[in-house]
Amino acid sequence: MSAPRPLPLLQACRREPTPYTPVWLMRQAGRYMPEYRAMRARHGFLELCKTPEAAAEVTLQPVKRLGVDAAILFADILLVLEPLGVGLEYTRGDGPRIHRPVRSAADVERLKPVEVEQAVPFVFETVRLARQALGDRLPLIGFAGAPFTLASYLIEGGASREFLHTKRFMREARSAWHALMGRLATVTAEYLNGQIAAGAQAVQLFDSWIGTLSPSDYREFVLPHSRSVIAAIAPGVPVIHFGTGTAGLLPLMREAGGDVLGLDWRVELGPTWERLGYDVAVQGNLDPGILLTSVGEIRRAAAEILAGAAGRPGHIFNLGHGVHQETPVDHVRALVDMVHDMSAR
Amino acid sequence: MSAPRPLPLLQACRREPTPYTPVWLMRQAGRYMPEYRAMRARHGFLELCKTPEAAAEVTLQPVKRLGVDAAILFADILLVLEPLGVGLEYTRGDGPRIHRPVRSAADVERLKPVEVEQAVPFVFETVRLARQALGDRLPLIGFAGAPFTLASYLIEGGASREFLHTKRFMREARSAWHALMGRLATVTAEYLNGQIAAGAQAVQLFDSWIGTLSPSDYREFVLPHSRSVIAAIAPGVPVIHFGTGTAGLLPLMREAGGDVLGLDWRVELGPTWERLGYDVAVQGNLDPGILLTSVGEIRRAAAEILAGAAGRPGHIFNLGHGVHQETPVDHVRALVDMVHDMSAR
Repeated sequence: MSAPRPLPLLQACRREPTPYTPVWLMRQAGRYMPEYRAMRARHGFLELCKTPEAAAEVTLQPVKRLGVDAAILFADILLVLEPLGVGLEYTRGDGPRIHRPVRSAADVERLKPVEVEQAVPFVFETVRLARQALGDRLPLIGFAGAPFTLASYLIEGGASREFLHTKRFMREARSAWHALMGRLATVTAEYLNGQIAAGAQAVQLFDSWIGTLSPSDYREFVLPHSRSVIAAIAPGVPVIHFGTGTAGLLPLMREAGGDVLGLDWRVELGPTWERLGYDVAVQGNLDPGILLTSVGEIRRAAAEILAGAAGRPGHIFNLGHGVHQETPVDHVRALVDMVHDMSAR
Repeated sequence: MSAPRPLPLLQACRREPTPYTPVWLMRQAGRYMPEYRAMRARHGFLELCKTPEAAAEVTLQPVKRLGVDAAILFADILLVLEPLGVGLEYTRGDGPRIHRPVRSAADVERLKPVEVEQAVPFVFETVRLARQALGDRLPLIGFAGAPFTLASYLIEGGASREFLHTKRFMREARSAWHALMGRLATVTAEYLNGQIAAGAQAVQLFDSWIGTLSPSDYREFVLPHSRSVIAAIAPGVPVIHFGTGTAGLLPLMREAGGDVLGLDWRVELGPTWERLGYDVAVQGNLDPGILLTSVGEIRRAAAEILAGAAGRPGHIFNLGHGVHQETPVDHVRALVDMVHDMSAR
């Protein structure tokens, strides 16, 4: 029996040299892909998440189609919060809705406990099935929403642009805010560790909407809780810490922790990595909008990012946010190939 | 006859010492204010913009109510583009709509010429009336949308979150893009100079949506055009160059020009100013969401910003974006007073 092949994605998380720059894409499984749309024609979104065989199949679709260097669990960040009792519903087209948003200290106290194993057994089963199928060929990334992003959904009642309720709640009910964030941090850490126990080899913490906050608010209201999630992750498992609109927050996100910092396209990878320090790995950072243009333009932009990373160990190629649903699959495939080609060492 | 009193806002634009930190607020005239809502009950939005007496009255409302250090012209950034013939309409609640969005080189060629004096005589008349009423007591700030923000409306057909059409157009029709931006830059410079001729003593260039771009895209697709607008402004009149989500773009915006850089709350004013250099003034940068909390919280946050500026000449206090419509007027008034009090030298 031979030793398992080293996996470039995990090597890059540890800032070890790799034969080429590993690449995966946020929302690499999704509506832009015909085989995903075929699955969605047969299953509702929630049903898909809750049916491990189907969710594992969706998890693996981009591996077959794109040649990426990792699979990422297919799931939704809010599912683990269903037991809180806030009336979570997935509306058609409109994304998640929370029917009883959390707007006061009393609302926080009223939240029911979350037993992760009972809340999302289907997620852990999906992880097991996907990992089994992947074997030692490719790593499986688990993920969860970070406490702020989860809290903002609970407080706003859905997606938001301005996060006015959240910003008010933080300041007007500081201790309830920290109580809520503390609970979400505990659930998130248990959830990620459950995915790791089921077979995930790395995890990404999505703080997708954090870019709405000032650095000073991040420091007071978010940093301690993101730090406690990351500190609680099973030792040895790389954590990717990601947000968008974070150009002013990255040094603080770094303080909160993570082996890899996810960058969006609003920063230049080269100088940003230099400023953050080369003792942290970075992931990113192509504007997903560029995938809608042409292969030539995608190559130009990808080459610029690779040049910024300068072949330094510890760069994972990714988009700065998820693949848009209007994206041609051929462009995504071409991106993966060209990243491999252009970065081959 | 005595010499006119020095105006702190204009002094700050020139980085001269002022007796206190001057303050004005983006969207200081707007729906949050009962006297504005009363005007809107009598006039449709477009009618209000096109009726100089009414628009001048709205321009002056916050001066009386808030004690700010400047008035800013009440107008809409797209009005000057009406002659282009793209079918601009202001829909109720939904903001501006462009019925024939610009999506190709042919669409750009089809755009009709804009004669600024004929397009927006009512704006210049509003400026004259407002300036007359203000006399030498307070300065009047004129404004315009920057070429990118105008182009994105024309291309997307309205407000957007992802700007996918714009990002595609830039790359797939580079020469049409630069032709469009060049035309918008010319119109914008003429428009601002027209406001200056009518009495505006400073102008703000709003590149509100620029934060959707990567630094590299900004450099190629935007910087030359914003620079040409700023370079064409009547000498001696301060230009405030503003955008949101610009943490990664500020050094490039600085390169494009402006006597004052507008900062949003996603950066810390102190270290950001230091990095940009003290040979440029800065404006900002309170999160407008904080105005919905409490006077105590507003004071804490305002004090932090003033501490970041450290009394250095060349800071204009403002929000990081416009006043939200749900904001209590008392909070806005309290902010203006406390900025004056806390910064009194």
